[in-house]
Amino acid sequence: MNSFWQENPRMINHLFEVNGVIKNQMTVKQEKMNEILQDLAKSGGKKIRPGLCLIGAGFGSKSIESIYPLAAVVEMLHLATLVHDDIIDDAVHRRGMLTTQQKYGKDYAVYTGDYIFTKCFEILAQNYELHHMRELSRAVSRVCVGEIEQFDARFNAHDSVKKYLKIVGAKTSALLATSLAIGAYEAGCQESFCKKLAKIGLHLGNAFQIIDDILDYQGDVSRVGKTLGNDLKQGYYTLPLIYALKTKDPYLKQLLSCETYEDDVIQKIIKRVDELGGIQQAAELAKKYTRKSLKEIAALPACQARADLEWLVKKLLERDH
Amino acid sequence: MNSFWQENPRMINHLFEVNGVIKNQMTVKQEKMNEILQDLAKSGGKKIRPGLCLIGAGFGSKSIESIYPLAAVVEMLHLATLVHDDIIDDAVHRRGMLTTQQKYGKDYAVYTGDYIFTKCFEILAQNYELHHMRELSRAVSRVCVGEIEQFDARFNAHDSVKKYLKIVGAKTSALLATSLAIGAYEAGCQESFCKKLAKIGLHLGNAFQIIDDILDYQGDVSRVGKTLGNDLKQGYYTLPLIYALKTKDPYLKQLLSCETYEDDVIQKIIKRVDELGGIQQAAELAKKYTRKSLKEIAALPACQARADLEWLVKKLLERDH
Repeated sequence: MNSFWQENPRMINHLFEVNGVIKNQMTVKQEKMNEILQDLAKSGGKKIRPGLCLIGAGFGSKSIESIYPLAAVVEMLHLATLVHDDIIDDAVHRRGMLTTQQKYGKDYAVYTGDYIFTKCFEILAQNYELHHMRELSRAVSRVCVGEIEQFDARFNAHDSVKKYLKIVGAKTSALLATSLAIGAYEAGCQESFCKKLAKIGLHLGNAFQIIDDILDYQGDVSRVGKTLGNDLKQGYYTLPLIYALKTKDPYLKQLLSCETYEDDVIQKIIKRVDELGGIQQAAELAKKYTRKSLKEIAALPACQARADLEWLVKKLLERDH
Repeated sequence: MNSFWQENPRMINHLFEVNGVIKNQMTVKQEKMNEILQDLAKSGGKKIRPGLCLIGAGFGSKSIESIYPLAAVVEMLHLATLVHDDIIDDAVHRRGMLTTQQKYGKDYAVYTGDYIFTKCFEILAQNYELHHMRELSRAVSRVCVGEIEQFDARFNAHDSVKKYLKIVGAKTSALLATSLAIGAYEAGCQESFCKKLAKIGLHLGNAFQIIDDILDYQGDVSRVGKTLGNDLKQGYYTLPLIYALKTKDPYLKQLLSCETYEDDVIQKIIKRVDELGGIQQAAELAKKYTRKSLKEIAALPACQARADLEWLVKKLLERDH
């Protein structure tokens, strides 16, 4: 977290407080579960969603402290989906640490995810009006459908950019957009203004996910904290590959038709996708979404929150992990 | 469903309507997910939780139609936990049909459960006040912790009746009690009255789960809809076995210390538990909880809902599947 937000000490302080709320809310009497939850609470991550929630609140007038539990909830919802994602993907590492499923087994991972989900709704019901519940439950429903859609599309060499963006919108951007918008709503902003923020959040979310997918093709393993070509191994054909496939390159097709994707095949696919311009084209689209959101941000009233949002969008574009 | 409630046609009609709400709410555009959800919606089950919710509402004055979505939610929450339970247990059958994990794979099962959970909170946020959300999120949190605790205690021959009841309280009775109480609350009953109902629900829930566990030792496979000795195979030492273990019988100990529980070992354990009086003692405790709840029900104001609740408690005690 710190390295991502290091140029923004004010936000680091707030996120530190949010982390305190998360650790607190993820404390249970049952020993084993408590161990797993505390492991997760300490697992770091960039904290984009709570950051967005706090920035959103910065556009309003309420004290930022009252936003902490809400910011904790959006991060916890994300954590719950990560725990369950790692079951599906049989992922070994996440954020440079062993995944819950890897360390404790799928059984604990299933229930831990469920517990965190439910705990989020408990926190919302205890602290906030129904509005956030409506928005967040809708966003998380979309995440689930998006994940299923993505899983269903594995090893499909005929996927379009349009379908990819639809999945990204559901599995990633919806929750990012909602995090930003409900922060503002909680802080007293008008609904029409929150909708503007949500739109920015969707564009920012698309850019964020595209970059994330690019990092699976060219990231620095020690920084990304997970193996390269991991999506590919699972059969997830993301944007760089979708663009590369548009060239109808026979060698790429041949590589993709291998029975299993061993490490050497993965390396060859990654190299070929790069040669065919897939990574570059994906990066262009990420930049396009970044430009879109920066333009929309520029039209917002000038204030600290606007500056923070602009900073975040730029930071997300240039990240290398 | 029908065979369980067949002597109560009024309740069957209401539950039929509730099922319509469930089918409706479990409709999504994504084809594969829709198939899975509709499969689940049609899967039957006894519908104890929505039944309790409707009976609870019968103590109040609100039109029963307004309770349908709430009754649908309590059944859907239960469904979500079942889908995830079956992942943990690698169960093949549930309600006489293939489990979601068995038919579609663990991946779809994880996300389907998540989707149903979230959808429940979406329905609550759209139709009801925060009260139910608070109560239900707390109940489901308890279910998750209870499931982890149960999983953590597998193959533990030193478990006590007290610990067993603690787990049952969390994983089963909490949601049953909440279903009954929030139905009444929604229909306008006083909070103190709802608390009385919740207490009845806890006792009824304990009886229900004990009987369920007994049925794993002596049920009729064709009626139970799942294999006998299934809990045992997974290492879940339930009440009949816990009582039998109290006798410190060396033969039982020897059987339990087998490396794997093959079918012949399972048969021998079941037989021995019965010989040692474990099943009978468990049945006695179920009867005790049933008597407790019947006594508490008798103290409620006489009305159709009270008669329904009394009928349900008796019916649950004598069920053979």
